Amino acid sequence: MLQPRPLRLLSSLSHIAARRVVAPLGPSQRCRRPYSIHADASVGEKIQDIDPTKLSITTTTTPKDLLPPEELIFGRNFSDHMLSLEWTASQGWLAPRITPYQNLSLDPATCVFHYAFECFEGMKAYKDKKGNVRLFRPDRNMARLNKSSARIALPTFDPDAMINLIGQFAKTDKRFIPDARGYSLYLRPTMIGTQRTLGVGPPASALLYVIASPVGPYYRTGFKAVSLEATDYAVRAWPGGVGDMKLGANYAPCIVPQMQAASRGFHQNLWLFGQEEYITEVGTMNLFAAIKNKETGQPELLTAPLDGTILEGVTRDSILGLARERLAPKGWKVLERKFTMKEISDAADEGRMMEIFGAGTAAIVSPVRKISWRGRLVDCGLEDHVEAGPIAQQMKDWIEAIQYGDEDHPWR
Amino acid sequence: MLQPRPLRLLSSLSHIAARRVVAPLGPSQRCRRPYSIHADASVGEKIQDIDPTKLSITTTTTPKDLLPPEELIFGRNFSDHMLSLEWTASQGWLAPRITPYQNLSLDPATCVFHYAFECFEGMKAYKDKKGNVRLFRPDRNMARLNKSSARIALPTFDPDAMINLIGQFAKTDKRFIPDARGYSLYLRPTMIGTQRTLGVGPPASALLYVIASPVGPYYRTGFKAVSLEATDYAVRAWPGGVGDMKLGANYAPCIVPQMQAASRGFHQNLWLFGQEEYITEVGTMNLFAAIKNKETGQPELLTAPLDGTILEGVTRDSILGLARERLAPKGWKVLERKFTMKEISDAADEGRMMEIFGAGTAAIVSPVRKISWRGRLVDCGLEDHVEAGPIAQQMKDWIEAIQYGDEDHPWR
Repeated sequence: MLQPRPLRLLSSLSHIAARRVVAPLGPSQRCRRPYSIHADASVGEKIQDIDPTKLSITTTTTPKDLLPPEELIFGRNFSDHMLSLEWTASQGWLAPRITPYQNLSLDPATCVFHYAFECFEGMKAYKDKKGNVRLFRPDRNMARLNKSSARIALPTFDPDAMINLIGQFAKTDKRFIPDARGYSLYLRPTMIGTQRTLGVGPPASALLYVIASPVGPYYRTGFKAVSLEATDYAVRAWPGGVGDMKLGANYAPCIVPQMQAASRGFHQNLWLFGQEEYITEVGTMNLFAAIKNKETGQPELLTAPLDGTILEGVTRDSILGLARERLAPKGWKVLERKFTMKEISDAADEGRMMEIFGAGTAAIVSPVRKISWRGRLVDCGLEDHVEAGPIAQQMKDWIEAIQYGDEDHPWR
Repeated sequence: MLQPRPLRLLSSLSHIAARRVVAPLGPSQRCRRPYSIHADASVGEKIQDIDPTKLSITTTTTPKDLLPPEELIFGRNFSDHMLSLEWTASQGWLAPRITPYQNLSLDPATCVFHYAFECFEGMKAYKDKKGNVRLFRPDRNMARLNKSSARIALPTFDPDAMINLIGQFAKTDKRFIPDARGYSLYLRPTMIGTQRTLGVGPPASALLYVIASPVGPYYRTGFKAVSLEATDYAVRAWPGGVGDMKLGANYAPCIVPQMQAASRGFHQNLWLFGQEEYITEVGTMNLFAAIKNKETGQPELLTAPLDGTILEGVTRDSILGLARERLAPKGWKVLERKFTMKEISDAADEGRMMEIFGAGTAAIVSPVRKISWRGRLVDCGLEDHVEAGPIAQQMKDWIEAIQYGDEDHPWR
């Protein structure tokens, strides 16, 4: 575990931020609160949604040096600025601000530290050949963030207004996006509850902020297939739970199983569910399997359905969409259905395994070589010196062409 | 949702804290890390556990005014000081510090904001008749905090050393404990991951801090029985999950079901599990039911077993211990076993219901009047103008006598 270089502390600004966060509230009133429990909204009083026209931009006076692109590591170095928006139950969303990247100054009783009032998104800004900054399906990220925040009693917001602001923020720090294929600016919208009391209830104040970290290609020297360990001793998500939300709460409990898998030489763990050992998802990615149908021999692309236990990945959805559009006409069957570890193992044993890959924002696709399960290693169809199957490679190419604007597509 | 008075910001100290939190690390090495994945500990190098002899105390120069005891509200006002201990993977636990209560200054990329690396405890310091400060079973809280932190890849610590420090901290802020039965100083030990990177992995730095909030009796004018709504549309915890840990992750997802119950006039929600509708726990309390056995008529005190889905409450354990010691000889059967909502409903219908109560640190016991389940209200055995059953009342009296030192007992 390496440590990042210490970042500059802009103390005066961090105090201003802190003071605004803890500003005393007027009569309690909810703005786009998912559920209201008391009729405490004064009828007729206007609560503000996010208003991009009120954006203030304070640029840094001490711009950072850019790192050489090859030294970029995911989520370790950040751009010059951050976007932040405060919300209070009485006023709604206050004016958005782009400020120098700076610490948050928070009371130790703030609810984010105690009850995990936090949710986030992962998305990227890309630079196209003309030097324009492009986002990829930001509407999906904003819809998911609203869904996550509502589930933990944090406020929701106008997604278009927030996409507008994220676009302005990405343009402000455009110089951090290296001018080469595979590079991008990883954007991390985060919402935290900022109420400073220990009573367990809906926060009356929140902070939505976006930070940005320049990143290089996940696989610098071409694909490198990973190996997974199927986890049956711990369970990530449950029907009726929150496994389909991008909540902080879904992440910390996953680290020890991940470390356990790593201690036995596996890159990530694969979450199984139930006695049936349904395949759900991998570490921080969704999973796709390409196998030939046992009866018909038809190629099938499988992924677990959105039953409330699966993160609704934007890359997952993009792969499904492209597969339906471009693989189905070539004879593929594209299926969102429950499938088990035994089905995969049988396909491998019977010569029907084509390929398996993970899907997520970081790598787009991540080919899988083998899966450890019940004391055996299930081979996922890659020849010894091949690091990716043709479907994984094809999906990466298709999606990157859209992300970098080589192809005109409604997903930009 | 009321807002607390803004607390003083001690900027210079908060910066010192922030700078230490982000101090660059030497070669990575784990101190009491629950699982180690790499052999990265230099053999022979000493990693520090918590050392109470290194405690530094900086007292405030601007002591707060004490609130009138009747104005105290749980977790809203805090004492003059806080206890804090930083941990790094390379150095272990750094010297403990008692400082003025102050904001935490944290980088927006800090892992506590993104992946819910956070766990906590709830405990109280009481003042006995001689004016001495007493803790109640702090060994149980420290054991649970170690278990919680290990589960999310945060460091563990020597529980006795931490109890020593918490004792010194409580004595430092002794003046905040009102001198009357029912009053105490609520102590909130909290551990957060402080690593400033977005990669999902075990944090290489952490902060353990304790803040204190003076509190009055949960029921100021005697017991007031609550009503519960059985929740079947959402699930708090599951086998193989983390429902037995005091993680922040277990709290935020519970707020919306709590608000839903409140919107229909219920004080808290009761978490059922599975098709069998097992009774697990209530909002933030464990649950006890006293019913007469269907066959024998023998009185039974029931609570759900510790199967990994139930918070291992210190009050729950204390009630079980006292019941075995003092109720069993009087003919009671004390049972930790799974029991269903239907069993409770049948007991009510058949005249075998004695009483039901919640158990937790805040109220000790919280009598239940009725439970909404499948469109009916299950009566929990209290006469109309009675607010607590005899067992709930007895347990509160027994436990308070130990907490306030009226009775000599090994739990002090």
